[in-house]
Amino acid sequence: MNRYNLTSDQIPTAWFNALPALVEPLLPPLHPGTQEPVGPDDLSPLFPMGLIAQEMSPELWIDIPGEVLDILRLWRPTPLVRAERLERALGTPARIYYKDESVSPAGSHKTNTAVPQAFYNQAEGIKRIATETGAGQWGTALSFASRQFDLDCKVYMVRASYEQKPYRKILMETWGSEVVASPVDQPDHPGSLGLAISDAVRDAGGRDDTHYALGSVLNHVLLHQTVIGLEAKDQLALAGEARPDVVIGCCGGGSSLGGIALPFMADAAVRLVAVEPSSCPTLTEGTFEYDFGDTAGLTPLLAMYTLGHDFVPPSIHAGGLRYHGDSPIISNLVKSGRMEAIAYPQGKTFEAAVQFANTEGKLPAPETGHAIRAVIDEALAAKELGEERVILFNYSGHGFLDLSAYDDYLNGRLIDA
Amino acid sequence: MNRYNLTSDQIPTAWFNALPALVEPLLPPLHPGTQEPVGPDDLSPLFPMGLIAQEMSPELWIDIPGEVLDILRLWRPTPLVRAERLERALGTPARIYYKDESVSPAGSHKTNTAVPQAFYNQAEGIKRIATETGAGQWGTALSFASRQFDLDCKVYMVRASYEQKPYRKILMETWGSEVVASPVDQPDHPGSLGLAISDAVRDAGGRDDTHYALGSVLNHVLLHQTVIGLEAKDQLALAGEARPDVVIGCCGGGSSLGGIALPFMADAAVRLVAVEPSSCPTLTEGTFEYDFGDTAGLTPLLAMYTLGHDFVPPSIHAGGLRYHGDSPIISNLVKSGRMEAIAYPQGKTFEAAVQFANTEGKLPAPETGHAIRAVIDEALAAKELGEERVILFNYSGHGFLDLSAYDDYLNGRLIDA
Repeated sequence: MNRYNLTSDQIPTAWFNALPALVEPLLPPLHPGTQEPVGPDDLSPLFPMGLIAQEMSPELWIDIPGEVLDILRLWRPTPLVRAERLERALGTPARIYYKDESVSPAGSHKTNTAVPQAFYNQAEGIKRIATETGAGQWGTALSFASRQFDLDCKVYMVRASYEQKPYRKILMETWGSEVVASPVDQPDHPGSLGLAISDAVRDAGGRDDTHYALGSVLNHVLLHQTVIGLEAKDQLALAGEARPDVVIGCCGGGSSLGGIALPFMADAAVRLVAVEPSSCPTLTEGTFEYDFGDTAGLTPLLAMYTLGHDFVPPSIHAGGLRYHGDSPIISNLVKSGRMEAIAYPQGKTFEAAVQFANTEGKLPAPETGHAIRAVIDEALAAKELGEERVILFNYSGHGFLDLSAYDDYLNGRLIDA
Repeated sequence: MNRYNLTSDQIPTAWFNALPALVEPLLPPLHPGTQEPVGPDDLSPLFPMGLIAQEMSPELWIDIPGEVLDILRLWRPTPLVRAERLERALGTPARIYYKDESVSPAGSHKTNTAVPQAFYNQAEGIKRIATETGAGQWGTALSFASRQFDLDCKVYMVRASYEQKPYRKILMETWGSEVVASPVDQPDHPGSLGLAISDAVRDAGGRDDTHYALGSVLNHVLLHQTVIGLEAKDQLALAGEARPDVVIGCCGGGSSLGGIALPFMADAAVRLVAVEPSSCPTLTEGTFEYDFGDTAGLTPLLAMYTLGHDFVPPSIHAGGLRYHGDSPIISNLVKSGRMEAIAYPQGKTFEAAVQFANTEGKLPAPETGHAIRAVIDEALAAKELGEERVILFNYSGHGFLDLSAYDDYLNGRLIDA
């Protein structure tokens, strides 16, 4: 056996909320004008109350609505796969497992939060959602989810990705969304997640029928992603593993990493590792302080690791990791020492991604390649030490819509290689 | 429950061979020069003896080698999914199940035969394989499989697809293949499968270290694909279905259709349906006669439905269905009345594909869209009659690398719409 499947009625029925489980409580978000802690009313122009309540909930478990489960069941539970052929190629005694989130309709983990976000907005009478997207993973996921709940969706796509990756734009349009390049008012600017968030927040703030949706960073987003780690726990048990020794995920805003790692945070024997690009080294070289989530300073101030809200990272292919800040929950775990962080240049991550494609067959998204680089290095370290290390990682998305990036890698055209 | 999974040790361990089960025996292939029936020696410059034996085998079951199973287990057994949201959108009493072959590394069913073909070639000392590809599904599958067995692979890609679908070319290159546009000697010609086969056969015929590999049509290819239908049988039983009332697949050369349909051929209560493009209507408007498999007349003559080996179909997006002939096994079943055939213009198939994407989430390959069109029409016919029809179809591949086709559809640029 190399794959461990759960049946569709074994899907988790509650999300795991990390907030009450943090050793050091989160610092509250501050209003961008008054710099006072924000309350639910401050957030209500942008988010439905269902999500605002989750953003601040003290409950350890939060039930997943049946309407959400009905859609998640289109692809969940996702497979847990043992990467035996990669292990063999590395000659490692480590056992490597990956949670395959690439099987979702949009091809990544982002659908796990897109569906409940669309659901709560529709339930509260919202007709239209505005959002940003980097490489397009989040935009495609929200487009799919919006279509399921008959919501209109407008996506502000970071211009560098909009131009490099036309296929993701077409996929969003196939699900009925409108897609424009961001920043909308600077047509020569390559864009960044921070700038695109500003565009989307401005759009949502200006219309009563419209809310904003964010694909990462916020507490409720990481909450929705915990289905990944919760399923993985059950599946590791099926594989006969008591626990992973280390859980690894790539980290931009932190949602795919949080999704797989948070359900393991209470077990001190499990190492948690964040992997980021060295060209956008938020956790490894940023400072922990209050900063805006967007470039224009429209969002609340969050206590997080940041490179500064006006930092514009180079146009690397892992567009989903080009973010100046980081999730407050992930930042909290790194600051307290519970989670490690590591950074790689993108050339090293593509090398790992191609090794994965050539052994396990699957072509990873460039973001996912960051996790795979760290997994391979962990497995080689285990080999050096002769250790039977159990490694779990989040295969957060496929790279079928990022093939131009592989073309650049194969032909020596990468920056930050 | 809407998905029915088998565990990785429930993968079929033998292929089902349709040859001894056909009511009317197949007419033998004829040598292109002598017009006499070909024997194993005639085929040995192009194929390994392991595959030649399968091409002519009288055995009903043929064991799958362990080395092949080890690689198939990377993604097999594939899921059987009930398309409940599509059923609901159609308001049909029919129950629709699809076998999801899109989860393979290359994104389609083609890997099922690419792996054993690479295995038998490597086992007999071959170092290099030449092949053709239409939309790129077969070329990517053989590139993946060749890499697993350390074979060099050269792919002659139909020029229309080479130019419309650069991403598939990059995917083949990522797995180490060399890809060129075909026909190689006519740079302004859009190409066809028949012409690309000629290019690849010429290449393989000219080098001792090189064999040729074909992704469809031949008996051994359909044999390898029967894992699809064999798994589906077990999974339908898990779903509590005694049998499907109808099994549907798109049909170009016939391998995805054969793969899902042949294991059901002995049960006369199960209707079998081939779906082809009306712009390349081999089964519905072609004639049954001996014809060459390629345009230049280098291959043996096969008894099949054909539009003539010099027929060049229009450049529709379902490149995998642009073939002048058809599998002798499929042709035999259609001629004897055991299998039905139906043709659709591509606009109707994209309409169905988008309806599937909007309900079930998954974006189908244009080829797969043909099957979905027929499935929807079957489900609507069942609604009209108030019948609980059980429909099984082959979701042969995803459309992530065909998004330019969706762009054309969404913007009214399709021919044969």
